[in-house]
Amino acid sequence: MADHRFVPTVFHTTLGPHDPVLTIESGDRVFTTTVDAGGFDANDNPVTPAGNPQTGPFRVAGAEPGDTLAVHLEQILPNRTRGYTKTWVAANVLDPGHPTLPADLPQSIDWNVDVEAGTAAPLGVPELAHWRVPLAPMIGCFGVAPERHQAISTATSERHGGNMDWNGFQAGVTAMFPVFEPGALFALGDVHAVQGDGEIVGTGIEISADVVFRVELLKDHAIGWPRARTPDCIATLGNARPLDQCVQHATTEMLRWLADDYGLDRHLAHIILGQAAGYQLGNMFDPAYTMVCTLTHDILRAITRTP
Amino acid sequence: MADHRFVPTVFHTTLGPHDPVLTIESGDRVFTTTVDAGGFDANDNPVTPAGNPQTGPFRVAGAEPGDTLAVHLEQILPNRTRGYTKTWVAANVLDPGHPTLPADLPQSIDWNVDVEAGTAAPLGVPELAHWRVPLAPMIGCFGVAPERHQAISTATSERHGGNMDWNGFQAGVTAMFPVFEPGALFALGDVHAVQGDGEIVGTGIEISADVVFRVELLKDHAIGWPRARTPDCIATLGNARPLDQCVQHATTEMLRWLADDYGLDRHLAHIILGQAAGYQLGNMFDPAYTMVCTLTHDILRAITRTP
Amino acid sequence: MADHRFVPTVFHTTLGPHDPVLTIESGDRVFTTTVDAGGFDANDNPVTPAGNPQTGPFRVAGAEPGDTLAVHLEQILPNRTRGYTKTWVAANVLDPGHPTLPADLPQSIDWNVDVEAGTAAPLGVPELAHWRVPLAPMIGCFGVAPERHQAISTATSERHGGNMDWNGFQAGVTAMFPVFEPGALFALGDVHAVQGDGEIVGTGIEISADVVFRVELLKDHAIGWPRARTPDCIATLGNARPLDQCVQHATTEMLRWLADDYGLDRHLAHIILGQAAGYQLGNMFDPAYTMVCTLTHDILRAITRTP
Amino acid sequence: MADHRFVPTVFHTTLGPHDPVLTIESGDRVFTTTVDAGGFDANDNPVTPAGNPQTGPFRVAGAEPGDTLAVHLEQILPNRTRGYTKTWVAANVLDPGHPTLPADLPQSIDWNVDVEAGTAAPLGVPELAHWRVPLAPMIGCFGVAPERHQAISTATSERHGGNMDWNGFQAGVTAMFPVFEPGALFALGDVHAVQGDGEIVGTGIEISADVVFRVELLKDHAIGWPRARTPDCIATLGNARPLDQCVQHATTEMLRWLADDYGLDRHLAHIILGQAAGYQLGNMFDPAYTMVCTLTHDILRAITRTP
Repeated sequence: MADHRFVPTVFHTTLGPHDPVLTIESGDRVFTTTVDAGGFDANDNPVTPAGNPQTGPFRVAGAEPGDTLAVHLEQILPNRTRGYTKTWVAANVLDPGHPTLPADLPQSIDWNVDVEAGTAAPLGVPELAHWRVPLAPMIGCFGVAPERHQAISTATSERHGGNMDWNGFQAGVTAMFPVFEPGALFALGDVHAVQGDGEIVGTGIEISADVVFRVELLKDHAIGWPRARTPDCIATLGNARPLDQCVQHATTEMLRWLADDYGLDRHLAHIILGQAAGYQLGNMFDPAYTMVCTLTHDILRAITRTP
Repeated sequence: MADHRFVPTVFHTTLGPHDPVLTIESGDRVFTTTVDAGGFDANDNPVTPAGNPQTGPFRVAGAEPGDTLAVHLEQILPNRTRGYTKTWVAANVLDPGHPTLPADLPQSIDWNVDVEAGTAAPLGVPELAHWRVPLAPMIGCFGVAPERHQAISTATSERHGGNMDWNGFQAGVTAMFPVFEPGALFALGDVHAVQGDGEIVGTGIEISADVVFRVELLKDHAIGWPRARTPDCIATLGNARPLDQCVQHATTEMLRWLADDYGLDRHLAHIILGQAAGYQLGNMFDPAYTMVCTLTHDILRAITRTP
Repeated sequence: MADHRFVPTVFHTTLGPHDPVLTIESGDRVFTTTVDAGGFDANDNPVTPAGNPQTGPFRVAGAEPGDTLAVHLEQILPNRTRGYTKTWVAANVLDPGHPTLPADLPQSIDWNVDVEAGTAAPLGVPELAHWRVPLAPMIGCFGVAPERHQAISTATSERHGGNMDWNGFQAGVTAMFPVFEPGALFALGDVHAVQGDGEIVGTGIEISADVVFRVELLKDHAIGWPRARTPDCIATLGNARPLDQCVQHATTEMLRWLADDYGLDRHLAHIILGQAAGYQLGNMFDPAYTMVCTLTHDILRAITRTP
Repeated sequence: MADHRFVPTVFHTTLGPHDPVLTIESGDRVFTTTVDAGGFDANDNPVTPAGNPQTGPFRVAGAEPGDTLAVHLEQILPNRTRGYTKTWVAANVLDPGHPTLPADLPQSIDWNVDVEAGTAAPLGVPELAHWRVPLAPMIGCFGVAPERHQAISTATSERHGGNMDWNGFQAGVTAMFPVFEPGALFALGDVHAVQGDGEIVGTGIEISADVVFRVELLKDHAIGWPRARTPDCIATLGNARPLDQCVQHATTEMLRWLADDYGLDRHLAHIILGQAAGYQLGNMFDPAYTMVCTLTHDILRAITRTP
């Protein structure tokens, strides 16, 4: 149950079997920092090439393929004031042939991120000068080393996690990843101060951050896709294209969870999901899109309580 | 501003240029009833063939192609106690090859819908006997006659509305449809007492209902896809396959709305949607799926207020 | 076995339960004409609104839901010299954000269609002045009245046929459609003098034509999707979005055909298709795309011959 | 222009920045062997784990990011008699919910591959005992190290090539890949003695092979996606999901090729492709599907000849 303070000096733009930067035990807590998607740190200095550079990987002692790594997100705190976003909805999110960004407009704008006030304000756009967006910091890209000893770009996502860009990955949430490599090799980065559903402009408000997380190793407990436990619900994430396939993965994983851990097998989980499932759009921008299937704790409690 | 009480005797399973059952004026209110998706009425008697039979069409005097028909949903009230749902998530919502419904399990179950208590309870499933689902009645299928004098099955949806199965179409919401035929020819049916996101088992809790709506004609105001105004947000609906295309239609329509009615043109609407758009899954069961793009009134007020 | 000469005077831009223009018997042959997709006839006069206007519908005596209508295409002959095509690949066929047609270029060009020489030559494009494209006339849009008494736009396609735009529908080919309405109500139009795979610019070389076809009614023989028999192969067509779903419909229909008519059930048809199936892209432009699954007569003969 | 004889001893199931097994020069020819998809060699001995193990990577001296590597496939010759295929069309190729392989049937069957006779014969399926399939050996999986120092599973494909499973990659064809890593790091494997379009059962006739190829380095010549030159046509490959996106990548790449190398810019290439493009289905089984856009040399000659 140790606390580690880790200052990153190397970063990777793939999730894969890289040399671990630190070995930690199940139950340990890590205090560390992440650079923004473009590789800029808390002082707004460029310290590594762009592309969702990751802090880590952290080796979790005893983690083996077939286990699950739970990561409790305890704090995600922007550690500088400048954030930035792109300014045009991605072409793949709009009707084919819809006009692209006019040449006289900027491709990105900066935002003033005020952690104390809990808001972000767009800069350099007079019409929006008075707008304050409530902060809701989240992790855009994190995960473990993928199956088959692959090293997969942090631009995309798959079963091992990666660039899922779901705005539900906030402090107070537990993320779960299937372990494919010994030690799991967990890494994280790409914090957004805020992000709309779908990350449809291709960014949230990109920023560097102080992050605190605690790992927990679930031995001999295999899962198929990333899962989450939020204060409100349990959630499963499907990462693929098109969105239909994301829904297929997420829903199938939810059925597996409800059968394995809640005893809701045969048609019980189906009946419940039919009238109570929720779906959220993680991202529709990255090479793999993300859809999230949710079920509230209220429902789970109502279903599984003793009469 | 007349009130009409209309008792349906004929029903259609297409939306199209059918003979109107009643002519109403912009501002008029209609009190009527809908049979369930299977054609059963308030007395649980089969009165018309299955397939989302529609009450109507209602001719709105003066409606012409290029106008928009707004329909204020004032009341959607189940008018009997028996509802029913299917019991297995549709094959297209699960990973390819996932097992289908075991032969020893029922394809559908009944629910006891208790309007006074505001809940529905599944029947004949002992493990779920104590579960009470809060009612949230909604309209599954409604819309106007489509473009090009088509008559399109109420199993599917398109620009004219139809079987969108979005659980946001509840009382207190205004739905808007583009007018393609003189008189608009609005019809409605397929009420669900409750429905999970995505209608993934292929039904909500299907039931007959008493419905009250008021129409409002917006002259010379063309829209591309169905829109809605809920107590919380404005919403645009895209109906197509795959879900990606639904998102494309819904998002493009939202940009159009923000430019036309809120003066948010050039990159303003893009910047806002990037950090504030919401998405909801209407259905992923029908021939055309439905995704909904939303923006809260809070955001709209914050953006458009005078500083 | 009568021959009919039919001169069309009314045209429809939906396939649906329209009044038949002529009643014919199984075995009868019809000599008729089609206007081009824009409604222009053999004299290049506009005679009906644009949108793949159809000649027909022809009522086939005795046709009932559950039957199959076979249409032997005996002749498809352009009957004027001017054809036209669009000039830019559709946005949905190119990477999102790919530039659209520059404003200084024409949206469509004319072609000189020379039936005697058997070629088409583009007009008004000096760089292509010497190009001669061999004619391969085909029917872009034809089919029967759809299920559920729908009237469906001739811009799209479904189980009943419609705007499939497969360049395999040439003279010498038999097309088969499931019958949904009494009399089948077969109609045809939208001839292309030539068309590349996918109809990716949104047109073939659009032209009016003289067409000769012979109908054959297959009683009590239900099929799920349009089929074809060409000199080389048997073919099944899936009409949907995305292309994946087209392949699913076409392949499933091919398995059904091989089981029902060729006795290739259990895993036999699967083993054969795995190593011998062919696929062709009908269109990737219309609201519903089309993919075609084929199996050559050579293979069928090799498989089903007595050893 | 050296000839190399290379006997593989290590194999990789990712394409990535692995240690090269041999350094060759542009113009060099390599005589080598590949194991089958399951890791079995010419003697039918298991020599490496399954999953399209690759022979290589070969380092091409002087290759740098931004170059193109052309690989002339001179010979692809099965080097044993046993091949094998799966026996059921994959669930994602059939309508959702279609029955899966009955439990009493084998998941795979063997084939007798007779190189001298030029045929393959299925074994253990009496009904098909007399069937002889003409051999058409092809490479299922080959390519270079991907961008961003990724190591990507040989189950899938992307811009760098990989498991494209296009039955057009036969002897006599030149494949072209964009270079992302110094030395290109070309590897190859997964030969099929025969394969139907789409690899819809998840295999061709899988077999080990003797392969001869010659590399040619095209300096400062960047391409976006794999390309091919066959005796009949030029071809571009898009690897993604759904098939629509494959077509988008392949068609966009073809436009780029026609503009860059054939001077067909502005709308010329669009007009030509509209009436002359061909499309082929590579695979609809792997994590990324493959569609191929083709244009015949006949057309290219007709278009670009001096009048």
